[in-house]
Amino acid sequence: MAIRDLDELRLAVIGIGYVGLPLLVEFAKKREIVGYDVSKSRVRSLQQGRDENGEVKSIPQNIKKNIHFTDSEDDLSDANTYIITVPTPVDDFRKPDLSFVIAATKTVAKFINTGDLIIYESTVYPGVTEQVCAPIIEKISGKKYLIADEDDRGFYLGYSPERLSPGDTSKGVADIVKVTSGSTPKIANLIDSLYASISNVGTYKSPSISVAEAAKVIENTQRDVNIAFMNELSIIFNEIGIDTQEVIKAAQTKWNFLPFSPGLVGGHCIGVDPYYLAHLGIQKGHRPDILLAARNVNESMGKRIVDRVTQLMIQKGIGFPGANILILGLTFKENCKDTRNSKVFEIIREFTKLRCNINVFDPFVGSSSQEKVCPAKIIDELGDEKYDAIVLTVAHTYFKDMGIDALKTIAKKPSVIYDVKSIFPRHSVDGRL
Amino acid sequence: MAIRDLDELRLAVIGIGYVGLPLLVEFAKKREIVGYDVSKSRVRSLQQGRDENGEVKSIPQNIKKNIHFTDSEDDLSDANTYIITVPTPVDDFRKPDLSFVIAATKTVAKFINTGDLIIYESTVYPGVTEQVCAPIIEKISGKKYLIADEDDRGFYLGYSPERLSPGDTSKGVADIVKVTSGSTPKIANLIDSLYASISNVGTYKSPSISVAEAAKVIENTQRDVNIAFMNELSIIFNEIGIDTQEVIKAAQTKWNFLPFSPGLVGGHCIGVDPYYLAHLGIQKGHRPDILLAARNVNESMGKRIVDRVTQLMIQKGIGFPGANILILGLTFKENCKDTRNSKVFEIIREFTKLRCNINVFDPFVGSSSQEKVCPAKIIDELGDEKYDAIVLTVAHTYFKDMGIDALKTIAKKPSVIYDVKSIFPRHSVDGRL
Repeated sequence: MAIRDLDELRLAVIGIGYVGLPLLVEFAKKREIVGYDVSKSRVRSLQQGRDENGEVKSIPQNIKKNIHFTDSEDDLSDANTYIITVPTPVDDFRKPDLSFVIAATKTVAKFINTGDLIIYESTVYPGVTEQVCAPIIEKISGKKYLIADEDDRGFYLGYSPERLSPGDTSKGVADIVKVTSGSTPKIANLIDSLYASISNVGTYKSPSISVAEAAKVIENTQRDVNIAFMNELSIIFNEIGIDTQEVIKAAQTKWNFLPFSPGLVGGHCIGVDPYYLAHLGIQKGHRPDILLAARNVNESMGKRIVDRVTQLMIQKGIGFPGANILILGLTFKENCKDTRNSKVFEIIREFTKLRCNINVFDPFVGSSSQEKVCPAKIIDELGDEKYDAIVLTVAHTYFKDMGIDALKTIAKKPSVIYDVKSIFPRHSVDGRL
Repeated sequence: MAIRDLDELRLAVIGIGYVGLPLLVEFAKKREIVGYDVSKSRVRSLQQGRDENGEVKSIPQNIKKNIHFTDSEDDLSDANTYIITVPTPVDDFRKPDLSFVIAATKTVAKFINTGDLIIYESTVYPGVTEQVCAPIIEKISGKKYLIADEDDRGFYLGYSPERLSPGDTSKGVADIVKVTSGSTPKIANLIDSLYASISNVGTYKSPSISVAEAAKVIENTQRDVNIAFMNELSIIFNEIGIDTQEVIKAAQTKWNFLPFSPGLVGGHCIGVDPYYLAHLGIQKGHRPDILLAARNVNESMGKRIVDRVTQLMIQKGIGFPGANILILGLTFKENCKDTRNSKVFEIIREFTKLRCNINVFDPFVGSSSQEKVCPAKIIDELGDEKYDAIVLTVAHTYFKDMGIDALKTIAKKPSVIYDVKSIFPRHSVDGRL
């Protein structure tokens, strides 16, 4: 069977989360599409027009009518092109957890017909699409994975990494260059046209699936390494009593300096993807020491911040246990409600060990949320309570707008205000990274 | 004695090398200045109008007449402002070698009068100017190091890091923002005006000497870490048979990807400065694992390249010992004649262990130079000799202009052409990083 034309493609997106939903919406501007998720409650919310993740504000009716949200596998049977957008987290031992990708692959494999196409968007290490997923599909479907245009009795694969930046509403799916790839030259062209049809800024056709897989995983790892290096600097500079932000400001006057800043690295991308690359390196006999050292520093920052705040508190004569702590910000990133893998949880855990009373306030996370911060307490407004220490962990615009003076009214005398992200002027707070 | 005015400053530059000479020339456009160096032969060449380093093409007569080149310490006695531009290398154990800075400091200290000013431009770790150099000057001169404007019975210090990029003629001293700092607020202003007087692009007054010291050392370390990360990637990608340049090209289509490339890191800045920062970190109880891992990878690249070339040669049936190797490029950087700390020497050493016959050709380094590459041989032209392997180590424009076809005429059949810096199209060579 020959490769299909663009308008013959009948699309289904598997996994309607942070990545899948915006993609569904873009495609639905042009064509009908199926959106499948295993979560009944997620599908029900979406059918009712609500996105609990807050990534998509509201779906206009003329677009929504093109999307068939479903939790029923059977609704996938009409599709011939499947786009897999499920998460790829790490397990407790920081090893890649491919279980969602494998589960989605198995689901799709049941419906594969000759000439069908499966495109992965999940972040993986190079080789996963062709060496992990292809054999699963071959086994379940009984069809052959095709890597040459001359051969057309089987199925095709593609990889096109998602590059979304949660909370950054200025960069939607259509505003980010989409890297594409396919298992044969013709299918690569077809996949490229498919994504080009929804992009305002174009696509980049990668020479192979593994190059596209590699490109994605190095983007976030590079960012992780650079932030980690700034954290490493801040550890040294803190020891010698110089302010890291002042050093960065001076260095930034050089034309090629890269203005990264120290901070917590959480979330489901930057703090996770490097482990995928490390996993591959170790398998191939090369332990990637730079990126693992970077991960190690970034994983340690929560504890380091608590150590510094505690030190400052004790220096000011504030007693433990029983100190009253306010944590401002719970999400992994500013101006977004995503708390996945937020390193603020680490800060809460460390203060808990010091038997502090901890309140957490985040304008994006209400007390009715299901976040597990016990014995700390999520509060919905700041109220009259006074604190021995206030730790600003996330640079929400909300906190900037609130201003340092407002914070000082709820700080005891003495108290410590620690500004992890340097939101406020240096001398208005007691410490920062 | 009150702080001097800008036009009362009588300048002497200590150390007329890559950093000192261009600085002398800039100042000499505006004022008379003394240039002192311990090397008689260097001073004699400069007096005769020759710069063996090739950084300053020729000094116009109207500028040259303002510079008093000297190797006599006594000529420093009239100055009241000393700018120290001596090298700060590392020793064999990769520890900071401050001997040149200390020697220059001792020389200058003999001539210090009340109100004099010593400015350091050499790259150091934060603390060297005030904690290593100041006590030496105090001891020799018997004068006090001044850190407050109210106190004026002693000498002042400043730090203004050199930021030159060897071989990059588009960015001279006057074209790079100059970070300045001084030991008191008024002296910081004076130093800032002094450098502003020769800058086309302005200055940045750092809040302290240690912040200025730190800013310089992190600039080059950041670059080292980023190149090392690309080298780490190339090691892994080589194992799985994907081309690093193709991955970088795809990743680069993301708005915030930083397009560094794998390669050799030599020279007297990027390959050296990180050890200064590491030294400080270790002293303060924090071994900086990221930058040391980065150094480790970058230091290993020469050997890795030889390993790969050897593997490719053996795969093609080329025999050892006695293989004929051509190395193209000896300098640490493209289009510059600087060979200091070039990692190409490492490549030569490794091939020597395999008992190869090695010729080295570099349009910037003639056979009459004093470079120690024995038993390899520096040749002045390529001639008719044929090679079993050609390793392109430096991206001189000369090699690009020569073209891959010309290289193939001097390659035996079979042979290996390895293109470290990806000068030529991927499929025209046998391998690259």
